[in-house]
Amino acid sequence: MLRIGPIAAAAAFARRAPPRHRLAGNRESIPRSRPPALSRGGGGGGGGRVVPVLKTPKGTRDHPPAQAALRERLLGAVVSCFKRHGAAAIDTPVLELRETLMGKYGEDTKLIYELQDQGGELLALRYDLTVPFARYLAMNKVNNMKRYHVAKVYRRDNPATTRGRYREFYQCDFDIAGQFDPMIPDAECLKIVHEILSDLQLGDFVIKVNDRRILNGVFAVCGVPESKFITACSTVDKLDKVPWEEVRSEMVGEKGLSPEAADRIGEYVQLHGGLDLIERLLQDPKLSQNKLAKEGLGDMKLLFEYLTLFGITGKISFDLSLARGLDYYTGVIFEAVLLQQENEHVEELVGVGSVAGGGRYDGLVGMFDPKGRKVPCVGVSIGIERIFSILEQRLKASGEKLRTTETQVLVATPQKHLLAARLKLISELWDAGIKAEMLYKKDPKLLKQLQYCEDTGIPLAAIVGEQELADGVVKLRDVSTREEVDIPREKLVDEIRRRLEP
Amino acid sequence: MLRIGPIAAAAAFARRAPPRHRLAGNRESIPRSRPPALSRGGGGGGGGRVVPVLKTPKGTRDHPPAQAALRERLLGAVVSCFKRHGAAAIDTPVLELRETLMGKYGEDTKLIYELQDQGGELLALRYDLTVPFARYLAMNKVNNMKRYHVAKVYRRDNPATTRGRYREFYQCDFDIAGQFDPMIPDAECLKIVHEILSDLQLGDFVIKVNDRRILNGVFAVCGVPESKFITACSTVDKLDKVPWEEVRSEMVGEKGLSPEAADRIGEYVQLHGGLDLIERLLQDPKLSQNKLAKEGLGDMKLLFEYLTLFGITGKISFDLSLARGLDYYTGVIFEAVLLQQENEHVEELVGVGSVAGGGRYDGLVGMFDPKGRKVPCVGVSIGIERIFSILEQRLKASGEKLRTTETQVLVATPQKHLLAARLKLISELWDAGIKAEMLYKKDPKLLKQLQYCEDTGIPLAAIVGEQELADGVVKLRDVSTREEVDIPREKLVDEIRRRLEP
Repeated sequence: MLRIGPIAAAAAFARRAPPRHRLAGNRESIPRSRPPALSRGGGGGGGGRVVPVLKTPKGTRDHPPAQAALRERLLGAVVSCFKRHGAAAIDTPVLELRETLMGKYGEDTKLIYELQDQGGELLALRYDLTVPFARYLAMNKVNNMKRYHVAKVYRRDNPATTRGRYREFYQCDFDIAGQFDPMIPDAECLKIVHEILSDLQLGDFVIKVNDRRILNGVFAVCGVPESKFITACSTVDKLDKVPWEEVRSEMVGEKGLSPEAADRIGEYVQLHGGLDLIERLLQDPKLSQNKLAKEGLGDMKLLFEYLTLFGITGKISFDLSLARGLDYYTGVIFEAVLLQQENEHVEELVGVGSVAGGGRYDGLVGMFDPKGRKVPCVGVSIGIERIFSILEQRLKASGEKLRTTETQVLVATPQKHLLAARLKLISELWDAGIKAEMLYKKDPKLLKQLQYCEDTGIPLAAIVGEQELADGVVKLRDVSTREEVDIPREKLVDEIRRRLEP
Repeated sequence: MLRIGPIAAAAAFARRAPPRHRLAGNRESIPRSRPPALSRGGGGGGGGRVVPVLKTPKGTRDHPPAQAALRERLLGAVVSCFKRHGAAAIDTPVLELRETLMGKYGEDTKLIYELQDQGGELLALRYDLTVPFARYLAMNKVNNMKRYHVAKVYRRDNPATTRGRYREFYQCDFDIAGQFDPMIPDAECLKIVHEILSDLQLGDFVIKVNDRRILNGVFAVCGVPESKFITACSTVDKLDKVPWEEVRSEMVGEKGLSPEAADRIGEYVQLHGGLDLIERLLQDPKLSQNKLAKEGLGDMKLLFEYLTLFGITGKISFDLSLARGLDYYTGVIFEAVLLQQENEHVEELVGVGSVAGGGRYDGLVGMFDPKGRKVPCVGVSIGIERIFSILEQRLKASGEKLRTTETQVLVATPQKHLLAARLKLISELWDAGIKAEMLYKKDPKLLKQLQYCEDTGIPLAAIVGEQELADGVVKLRDVSTREEVDIPREKLVDEIRRRLEP
């Protein structure tokens, strides 16, 4: 469990389904001109040498040790939840055949990184972990599987790095594939989101739930032609960012819906609630006549029953404005949003960013199967980069320093000409499984050695001087209390273990 | 620690420095023609739909759960050794600017995957973790650091997948950067190789050690012009694969050395031994006059002193034929080779594949620094793919089944209409941190539920039937012994924890 102070705020997006509108103009913002291949080194010792530009590619970043340590803790918490739910790990290549990825992401297909044709197959970098998972299931004729996958994905997107949006970023996915009784796996996905967000203590949150079948039913009864369902869906998806008036004018203007249809849609998609709302819509004279909507509402009712047994309905909102971007969803969809007080004077909580999302995609595996064999799937993706930047800001604000190593003991010497003694002792400790370091100097000053312990958080120092060697002991120093005790050499390993017991 | 039977044999290569000769003809073997973009689904339910080709890119592979679990154990063992030596983790992007990678890998540069120019920067996939590490040090002006990095790298190489050679593969690198007293970090790198190969119980092994300065000294005193040092080096590098006669004829024929120079080189590079050989060469009338060779031999002597203190010289061989492929090495180089009996009748052990390699590269960071500021580095790369395929073959031969999940309890019901009871109980277990699963069926048969435990290695089943519900107990079943005990519900979590204590 991670416990790092209060939330740092900023608006952001779930990675699994970026709302389409923020992609507009993406292409234009990337300069077409090539950067100079090499730049001249700036005088000094360089003497006219040609040195490469020192940077990582746009939208990518290095993780120095402090960030890598924080990420390890965060991923550890997420993976431990996935394992708690019985998921197995799989791994798939970062590279996929281009044709595997094409036609799966709608408008976002243009964000896929393609590899140069260097002879051979045409390749691309994976855009998410869901399509490779579907390809994996079809290729290996797997009919049911509960798997997690934590790995990097790539999107040639406009980076917004302060909000945790990168071109290379981790996804943490949990998916259940297989033909099962309705809503049992779907409910587990929501339970997982609830567990992870609670564990990480990110503050208050709400998990919005909807169903693509209900949305399509709404469009149908509002008089939208079926050919416009997907585009209407992507307009509705903007409701978490812009007010209904704007969404309505896009529907009527850009998307060519009738004002009457738009108004009827507006009445539905501004609704949110719980079991009561589901019951009301099941009685809705128009919606209850639509087969798809009725199915979706029936399943939504079942889902709420299961979530009640899990005791988590307090954080769940059935929200008809939730649409999600990607084409492949076919049933339940959901998205978790962190909530925060807008300012000190208003008590109401507002959404400050989506941190998890997912849904049911029953048709994707069939797109890969030569015989069209379907494998129903439901899954969730944890928006780890967004959470990471929240925890990072929190850590910075707290002033707390995360240890970047796990070293338990520094092997030190107080006099000169004792390198051999240090090497011999540290080798004994390593062989006993103790995490140990020494300075890579022949004759370091004791003060420097102890300072290194303080700087890097090493709790113990094992000091061997001439006297200790003669006596067959090691001086074990507690770095924080500065207490020193002579320990017989043969008992040193046990004593270190005893001191460091949790 | 991993303990999985005896070694499975096959010749292979260390990934960090593939010998150059196996790259010959690489380009030709890649078909230039594009594969058909889409193939037709084969009749049946497909009904003429267009489905993509179902494969991973050439030289890449999926890891299904059993392999992912084995890899997790293997990487865990390696990382735990790196942490025992006080290394911090860093992460760098899979993508680098092309110019960062160019001019670092000699002939192997042609194996770099380049990304398509989609507007913006020219990018490539990293070829190893060493050059990105050097770029990181220069970019962040880091002067000393002990880091490990476990991540995938990419080489457009000819895959030989049965021998563990892929186009996408993991590298596990440990490096020490900084200006320190000679050979102390270098000795630690060799200690790490020794610890990892011993821990993994891969069988007998030898770590060959040499120094680029000694090799260059040998070439100089044998009359090779300095301009031919690198090409002579890459020819010597083949000595572990082909006999001296072939190497000699390449030197004289292709590389244009005089027969006399080749013969003189031959006398040196066929030598291998320990401290005795170092002493002998330090007395060698020609070699001892060469400044570089003398430095290298002096440091080699120091290295052997330190390795003696570590107690590992038994596995170390000072071997003048070791050259290693990459350009960037400047001092000590080393390579670990697994040994195996060639056949039942001959007791002598022969090398069956390199599983770790590394060396000192004091000039690489300076190539990135605008002022040419140097940061000396030494590091080791564990050939994890090679080791993985050995362990995989071993596991297959043993018939042992690795668990792919960590589930501790299956929540089961013996009668119909008890889904709610299962959902409620499993939710309690999850919330208490217990790893629990249930079948996603409304009314599964008890036999099916118990069979699932057997198939997936779940040790316990928590069974709630009508009687248990009425009595406020849960029937806890030990899957292997089939013993069942009623446990009061409020004591269930503690009882499960008690049963599963290690």
